[in-house]
Amino acid sequence: MTPNAPFTPDQQAGLYRAIYERRDVRSQFLPDAIPPEVLARLLHAAHHAPSVGFMQPWDFILIEDLATRQAVKRLFDEANEAAATQFAGEGREQQYRRLKLEGILDSPLNLCITCDRSRGGPHVLGRTSILEMDLFSACLAVQNLWLAARAEGIGVGWVSILDNDRLAQLLGLPEQVYPLAYLCLGYVSEFLPQPELQTQGWRQRLPLESLIHQDRWGTPLAQGPLQTALGNMTSIPAVDTTTAP
Amino acid sequence: MTPNAPFTPDQQAGLYRAIYERRDVRSQFLPDAIPPEVLARLLHAAHHAPSVGFMQPWDFILIEDLATRQAVKRLFDEANEAAATQFAGEGREQQYRRLKLEGILDSPLNLCITCDRSRGGPHVLGRTSILEMDLFSACLAVQNLWLAARAEGIGVGWVSILDNDRLAQLLGLPEQVYPLAYLCLGYVSEFLPQPELQTQGWRQRLPLESLIHQDRWGTPLAQGPLQTALGNMTSIPAVDTTTAP
Repeated sequence: MTPNAPFTPDQQAGLYRAIYERRDVRSQFLPDAIPPEVLARLLHAAHHAPSVGFMQPWDFILIEDLATRQAVKRLFDEANEAAATQFAGEGREQQYRRLKLEGILDSPLNLCITCDRSRGGPHVLGRTSILEMDLFSACLAVQNLWLAARAEGIGVGWVSILDNDRLAQLLGLPEQVYPLAYLCLGYVSEFLPQPELQTQGWRQRLPLESLIHQDRWGTPLAQGPLQTALGNMTSIPAVDTTTAP
Repeated sequence: MTPNAPFTPDQQAGLYRAIYERRDVRSQFLPDAIPPEVLARLLHAAHHAPSVGFMQPWDFILIEDLATRQAVKRLFDEANEAAATQFAGEGREQQYRRLKLEGILDSPLNLCITCDRSRGGPHVLGRTSILEMDLFSACLAVQNLWLAARAEGIGVGWVSILDNDRLAQLLGLPEQVYPLAYLCLGYVSEFLPQPELQTQGWRQRLPLESLIHQDRWGTPLAQGPLQTALGNMTSIPAVDTTTAP
């Protein structure tokens, strides 16, 4: 198949399924190891993300060592304890504490995707105006991996409640390398039908229409075919894009 | 189909095709309008990206107005002129100037994906340690849209050579809203078989193996099944994951 052949309906459905059925997994990890050929596909997918100036600023640290994961878990526990108190003022501390927000020790593999801010030398094409483009590129690699994982039946959770300086020290990162994403990976008992924070009433999904502006900020989308098309998409897309067997 | 049914081989192939055949498009845009139902699917896909604390920090500014696009193009021209001189020291200024780095006026639709840094209030779950998690979340929405666009036969180019403060002013953004990604969208005459910067000799793809570390930075991947599996993936994946009709 040439790169320019249209996607078949099944291929399109696969892409949309991955997007809509992807979850931030914290609680459903199974201990089963990820086979090397599957892990190779996930890393390869991440490596084919777009990057500013073809900089490819990412590295991948595969963390299986239990002592390292236990140390990261301690970093999480400390940061999470500090975080919980921040929600006291809003009366949500107890609700916050009930949420499970990481699967560091439950998942068989942790993966830190880093961003080497010096890669490609002092002048990187496309990064001359916006220095953060390297970090943004590394995020795109995260999402490639996250979606590929979903298509392989593997759950991913991003642990963001960590002191990055101490994480960098723990993983031995050079000064110019930023620990962009600390991820937990593994097969799961199930993918939940909707985000856990939504199910648990922490926060609801915003109406997409309210987030669309025409030509400049604050000009709402005019009534017309796009608004109609968006209105037709309010049901769960996974039901729309795939058919029952 | 339940959310937990395994992906079929065709569905998996669709996801991997989108990842491997996606390009940062600058030169191949066609003027054809994007139908509203297709645009709705792209925005909906972006809106279903993961976000820290289910914050959904993104907004979508659809920019069709010619005068606005011309003004953005002037911002690009100025920033690009400044950028070109930075490559003089490396003897690459002429090569830089030959590259086409945007399709602002050639594409039928520009889209600015923004990040509202105040959304969800002062305390956002998961953003208590790393304040930039909102920006990173918005990047994940960009990649969802970029991949969905590829599956729909639509090219996307990210224009990063812009003064963000002036862009924000031009689009009327409130102070707390950051113009994360200025994108050009449209159908294309072709998707190139590899990244343009690679074809033009600006920079080559790094060997994935060299970017993988075991447990901590600097410990190379041990010889074993993963290294073997990675070695088996060096051919163009689009050829591997789909079959000729």
